[in-house]
Amino acid sequence: MGANEREVPRLRQKKFQEMDLLFHPDSIAVVGVSEERLSTGASYLLGLLRAGFKGKVFAVGRNSGNMAGLPIYRSVREVPGEVDYVSVFIPREEVLALLEECRGKGVKGMQLFTAGFSELDEEGRKLEQELVNKARHLGIRLIGPNCTGLSCTKQRIALGPLGFFGEEGNVAFLSQSGGFGAVIYDYGSFLRLRFSKVISFGNAADLDAVDFLEYLLLDPDTQIIGAYFEGAKRNREFLAVLKEVAKKKPLVIWKGGKTKEGRETAFSHTASLSSAPWIWSSLIKQVGAVEVESMEEMAATLLAFQNLPPLRGRKAVVIAGLVGAGGGMSVASSDALALAGLELPHLSPSLRARLQGIFPRLVGTILRNPIDLGASPVRLGETLELLSTEGDFDLILFWLPIWQLLELGECWAEEWKKAVDILIEFNKQGKVPLAGIMPPGTMNEVGTKLLYEFQQAGIAVFPSLDSGSKALSHLISYYEGREQGK
Amino acid sequence: MGANEREVPRLRQKKFQEMDLLFHPDSIAVVGVSEERLSTGASYLLGLLRAGFKGKVFAVGRNSGNMAGLPIYRSVREVPGEVDYVSVFIPREEVLALLEECRGKGVKGMQLFTAGFSELDEEGRKLEQELVNKARHLGIRLIGPNCTGLSCTKQRIALGPLGFFGEEGNVAFLSQSGGFGAVIYDYGSFLRLRFSKVISFGNAADLDAVDFLEYLLLDPDTQIIGAYFEGAKRNREFLAVLKEVAKKKPLVIWKGGKTKEGRETAFSHTASLSSAPWIWSSLIKQVGAVEVESMEEMAATLLAFQNLPPLRGRKAVVIAGLVGAGGGMSVASSDALALAGLELPHLSPSLRARLQGIFPRLVGTILRNPIDLGASPVRLGETLELLSTEGDFDLILFWLPIWQLLELGECWAEEWKKAVDILIEFNKQGKVPLAGIMPPGTMNEVGTKLLYEFQQAGIAVFPSLDSGSKALSHLISYYEGREQGK
Repeated sequence: MGANEREVPRLRQKKFQEMDLLFHPDSIAVVGVSEERLSTGASYLLGLLRAGFKGKVFAVGRNSGNMAGLPIYRSVREVPGEVDYVSVFIPREEVLALLEECRGKGVKGMQLFTAGFSELDEEGRKLEQELVNKARHLGIRLIGPNCTGLSCTKQRIALGPLGFFGEEGNVAFLSQSGGFGAVIYDYGSFLRLRFSKVISFGNAADLDAVDFLEYLLLDPDTQIIGAYFEGAKRNREFLAVLKEVAKKKPLVIWKGGKTKEGRETAFSHTASLSSAPWIWSSLIKQVGAVEVESMEEMAATLLAFQNLPPLRGRKAVVIAGLVGAGGGMSVASSDALALAGLELPHLSPSLRARLQGIFPRLVGTILRNPIDLGASPVRLGETLELLSTEGDFDLILFWLPIWQLLELGECWAEEWKKAVDILIEFNKQGKVPLAGIMPPGTMNEVGTKLLYEFQQAGIAVFPSLDSGSKALSHLISYYEGREQGK
Repeated sequence: MGANEREVPRLRQKKFQEMDLLFHPDSIAVVGVSEERLSTGASYLLGLLRAGFKGKVFAVGRNSGNMAGLPIYRSVREVPGEVDYVSVFIPREEVLALLEECRGKGVKGMQLFTAGFSELDEEGRKLEQELVNKARHLGIRLIGPNCTGLSCTKQRIALGPLGFFGEEGNVAFLSQSGGFGAVIYDYGSFLRLRFSKVISFGNAADLDAVDFLEYLLLDPDTQIIGAYFEGAKRNREFLAVLKEVAKKKPLVIWKGGKTKEGRETAFSHTASLSSAPWIWSSLIKQVGAVEVESMEEMAATLLAFQNLPPLRGRKAVVIAGLVGAGGGMSVASSDALALAGLELPHLSPSLRARLQGIFPRLVGTILRNPIDLGASPVRLGETLELLSTEGDFDLILFWLPIWQLLELGECWAEEWKKAVDILIEFNKQGKVPLAGIMPPGTMNEVGTKLLYEFQQAGIAVFPSLDSGSKALSHLISYYEGREQGK
């Protein structure tokens, strides 16, 4: 190993520690708070308190006063002691002066919610450059501008002015859009995705995607990474770090701005100069990452990586009709899974005979793959047992018609409770990986509670057939690629 | 007009009346009810009562007793007076004898939930044929077997053993899968789709897709038709009636069993011999119907037809960022709408100048198309007014981030209430058609209530960007095609 090769990890480790401080500050000053109205700054501050931020919070505003029991300081300089991190919610004209205020206060990072820089006009572009120069001079790292910043579940830091927050886990989401950071927290909570960090980096004037990816590569709290990009800077480094990350941790990418219309919008959103879509698609494939095309597919794919082990192969068996008729869903899942590249092998004659033995002339039952139980959850335990011992499947999928369950009377609900227990118990045994699929429908508290039982047991339940099929295919392809790349 | 041409409408009218009776029976006998346990038959009977069926209900079972206060008769013959319609939930071996029981009771239609006929084995195929012969001899029309039957909101007849039911309206859904009939009722209710009839016809041993389409063509209560098919019988008539229906009423088709795997499953589900996918796709196009590829897209498309007028063209303008950052959603909607074939024209310089006038240096606002209001709903009324008077748009779309709204404190909630009122008021004026899109997220009671306000005002809110973009494109293409076909 040459000197250079030893040097790289050492530099990286140093940079990791520098960035790790930004995610774990002991104190945050929120700039742009006033007593009179619930500004975006005040809203962010309340979100921090609600999430239970582990450090100290300071409010800073033009006029003194109080917000949520905290005094409002008229400048960062007035804040007692050091300030690790500053979140900024003031007009762009005032930001340079704010940076000057931070001199000598020990500030390590500054996040700018403030927009109107390079994404807006020439004046904004110049101002953004001045900002970067001054911050570098002061030793302050910038996040944004035009972003909702950093969120860290371990340190209990919420995201953006609406204070989005979620459960702690090993999934990181890196986003050029603050809105999608909020979506992943909210939709993710519904699906029970659990997060280490959610990062919105906006215009990336200083810290950019490469920096954050290098950080997440080394972050021991992060094992799975989702990313929404609108464009890239530092193409060579970007490509290199994508490759390095994807080799070590599942990396799921959604590229916004794939059409001409989308590219124009992306430029006005985060000043991203975006390349042709085919370049991105082949690039994502080339580095061994996974490409998705919507937030629904993103969330479902992260869910698959979070809950399922690498599958041995593509052979799936589907159980439908636990409640009500499962025929249509059997046909639809055959189509969707086959299109996504999964295999639905026929049941062997001996397995079929064994199954026939436990389903004596039950009306509506179809003993093929998919298996349509025809509303006979009572035989579920024996069916799962037979599939795992007599069959040769890499995955068992079951339809979870939550909305139908909610229509059931007392009597059936009792029967279903047993079925839920059987599925959870089977998953615990770890014989064959198990996942659920929900048909579309009304979701209410009872349904959410039932869903939570599965999630609590570590069973991924996909919110739609389409997103679930794609997620499973991505999971398999990713590990196949990693295997071949070795 | 020749004699034949006069004859066809007359015959059709006669058949329409015959079939209309099946949807509006004065009495239904449910066969397969027992006091001891909640059988599927009993469950269907309870569903009928819950829906408030307008006629008389009779319970029939092997043993006498009571169910929900109704006496259980031991045969249809024992039921006092005539019986218009019989719903059957008994094993296949007993069905021929049941038909015989109905002789002289005035039975017009019989629906068989019972499965195990041509979709199962040779014995079942023979039995199905015997059944049809006997029913024809007795003048009884058969629905199914292997189906959840007919549901009619006007007559308050629920669907299938779980008793699915919904609001009365002008959308009919015709399905070879009973499960998808349930999905459309449940998911449709969430989206506020309103139904005339939901029809599950299973194996179609007697009444088939052609019959039901001919009926829906003439049905004054039905203006929009969705259909899930797994295969077709009577190809020539099927093609002809599809063409005729699509010319008169929007017809949205999902074909199940497009892959080899799906086709095999479809055969075991409803004994459907399905052709290659490209044949179906070109056939659907050729007749002027709309093709969709999932229940999500089906429901969104029916929603578009139910709530929106035929649009003048493809020029849309999008409003994002009513709450929180709307940049990512702007980029994503540019991509999705452009891919679906909608146009997002630039705002004219004069319109942009006027908009700039009402947004004085508001941080985060992007005045392009999509417009990102940067969480400034306070300017919404003026924005809508300008877009409708100064712009040249065929449609205004807005992002409705229901889940973000739920996170807001009192103060913002107040502001948002105003925004909701503004949107609803603008829609009433009918200047430019308006529709909403929801990002994915957690749905709860508060969100559902808010959604209901929009739905109540006749504003379609699409459950996802993907399904909404496709639904809008289908709406436009359908009317374009009908225009050209004239």
